[in-house]
Amino acid sequence: MIVHPQQVAIQVPLKLECGNSLPGFTLAYETYGKLNANKDNAILICHGLTATQHAAGRHAPSDPKPGWWDAAIGPGKPFDTEHYFVICINALGSFGGSSGPASLNPDTGHAYGMRFPLVTMADMVKAQALLADHLHIECFNTIAGGCMGGFQVLEWLRLYPARLARAVVISAGARVSPHTIALWKVLSDAIRSDPAWNGGDYASSQPPEAGLALASRIGSLFWMSRESMENRFGLRLADREKLSYSFAADFEVEAFLDKIGHGAGKIIDANSLLYLMRAMTYFDLSRSSSLAEVFTGIQSRTLLVSYESDWRYPPDETEELNHAIASLNAPVEHKIFDSKFGHGAFIYDFEGLGAAIRTFLAES
Amino acid sequence: MIVHPQQVAIQVPLKLECGNSLPGFTLAYETYGKLNANKDNAILICHGLTATQHAAGRHAPSDPKPGWWDAAIGPGKPFDTEHYFVICINALGSFGGSSGPASLNPDTGHAYGMRFPLVTMADMVKAQALLADHLHIECFNTIAGGCMGGFQVLEWLRLYPARLARAVVISAGARVSPHTIALWKVLSDAIRSDPAWNGGDYASSQPPEAGLALASRIGSLFWMSRESMENRFGLRLADREKLSYSFAADFEVEAFLDKIGHGAGKIIDANSLLYLMRAMTYFDLSRSSSLAEVFTGIQSRTLLVSYESDWRYPPDETEELNHAIASLNAPVEHKIFDSKFGHGAFIYDFEGLGAAIRTFLAES
Repeated sequence: MIVHPQQVAIQVPLKLECGNSLPGFTLAYETYGKLNANKDNAILICHGLTATQHAAGRHAPSDPKPGWWDAAIGPGKPFDTEHYFVICINALGSFGGSSGPASLNPDTGHAYGMRFPLVTMADMVKAQALLADHLHIECFNTIAGGCMGGFQVLEWLRLYPARLARAVVISAGARVSPHTIALWKVLSDAIRSDPAWNGGDYASSQPPEAGLALASRIGSLFWMSRESMENRFGLRLADREKLSYSFAADFEVEAFLDKIGHGAGKIIDANSLLYLMRAMTYFDLSRSSSLAEVFTGIQSRTLLVSYESDWRYPPDETEELNHAIASLNAPVEHKIFDSKFGHGAFIYDFEGLGAAIRTFLAES
Repeated sequence: MIVHPQQVAIQVPLKLECGNSLPGFTLAYETYGKLNANKDNAILICHGLTATQHAAGRHAPSDPKPGWWDAAIGPGKPFDTEHYFVICINALGSFGGSSGPASLNPDTGHAYGMRFPLVTMADMVKAQALLADHLHIECFNTIAGGCMGGFQVLEWLRLYPARLARAVVISAGARVSPHTIALWKVLSDAIRSDPAWNGGDYASSQPPEAGLALASRIGSLFWMSRESMENRFGLRLADREKLSYSFAADFEVEAFLDKIGHGAGKIIDANSLLYLMRAMTYFDLSRSSSLAEVFTGIQSRTLLVSYESDWRYPPDETEELNHAIASLNAPVEHKIFDSKFGHGAFIYDFEGLGAAIRTFLAES
């Protein structure tokens, strides 16, 4: 499946939760399949923290890897592009072409950097809704996403409950935990510790590679479990016969970490990552009202998915959403899977989830 | 209990595992209680990664806090200084006065920095044994320690099995896990990322504070569990009424992290921390022979202690030691406690352990 990046400038002011406004904004997106005449076969996929709108297919036949959720999206796949028009939108503030800190500030002619206004999950969703207006999609058949993408689905349910018939919320709760706030804080500190970050004012050709690499390494201590490191590396030495008795990367796991994040600056924009982590830190669906109140207008059927092994977004926090939606007598189910991939299972261990999505979409 | 720092220069060459030698070395230590005439009432306490030889009591009545294991050591306490002569030795390579990277290199007149030879757990123990010789202590009544201290007790059992009658090994296994190697690697990278670290050549008055603080923050993501952060901070705001919608530390957990590590450079020497983490990374008791072979000469009674909640040094890895020692028909027991403090339980939740140590020391 060959896909083409798309981008649209929305000339509508967007009032942000922080109090500032964008006079207009750009969203980059990809689409898979065809929008039907009734415009009622659209499925919106919301991406996670370090992913982009490139969810499926390849931009060129020579691309080594397809989009991040290629297992989910395509002809005959759970989000079947023979029947559905699937769209994935680069989140506002993210890297990938949507407006964000790397955008040019019209007032200065330079990149905004850290002067870009703070965006929240709700702001990202409001921007997506304006793009849906632009595409004349009144109501999505389904909106689905995992982790940060799941938070966006929840914001759709809160802000635009009439604009989706089905919601698929994966590996997400009603808010982030203090530990996740702490993790984002430390990863942000790691990025900002790099002198090349320079307060956010760096040339795109000279990103804060060292800070991003350090942040990636810190993250890998969490993305990979103790057990998975044991299985993958053990205490094997890295390309050497014996210990060097030095500070060199003697062990495979050390050599792996040394490689992690090299070139990250070419893929991930450091400032965007800071903005997205901040948006997640601020995500709390029930900050000013109960969850039952938040979901009062719900009209969709909802599939909640969590993973036993995902200690950062554990099933009992997803169950809180299930309870709140069920209390409104809205159709909801909570499926709990087990997977050694934990929080990454919805991408790296898709089979069980894929079957659940097929069933969920097939039910009328 | 007022204690006085002590220090001795041992004028004996020490051949290190890395192949280099120290022509002589200094060890700093503290003692509590009195060595008896037979010199058979000595208990050696081995300290952990970020602790020092200041294990108990105060240096001055005005000290706000006593030594790190004051709950364990003192008159009437489990390591009862009315009966025992307790000694805690600053590990070779550590900060606190023993020879290490902050020592003056006699060849240059400047601090060694990263030119200090690499030391291992075995080297630390060999240095301790030479100090024991100096004090005419042939055989310790007990050698005890947790985490890195536990590794040292295990090296005593391997290298000098006739020189201890009892061993207390807490929260330690026969080797570190790949995840711990990865964690030490990332903390080391954080320290080295600070330009003030300067390849290890910094003035003691201008330590790499930012790198140490970042390392401390990364560490705190592991020392504190998700649950403990939830209980301690929740999502409470830090000294403000509402969200700032900025990158400021809005949440208590963020403000806590901002404080962590401030002034760490006054307490912990960055280079020493790099050396100690490296020594732990290299610790593998059974790298070149089976554990049963390692413990062949064992003559002591051994108490092994682990904690259910300590996922970094879990009970099943301590059980491997129990199995190996028991296979030699040497007296050994493995007590498994539960504590919300996980790896820090032997310091912060001492009661159960204290009772076990009392019983163990009372048995003939």
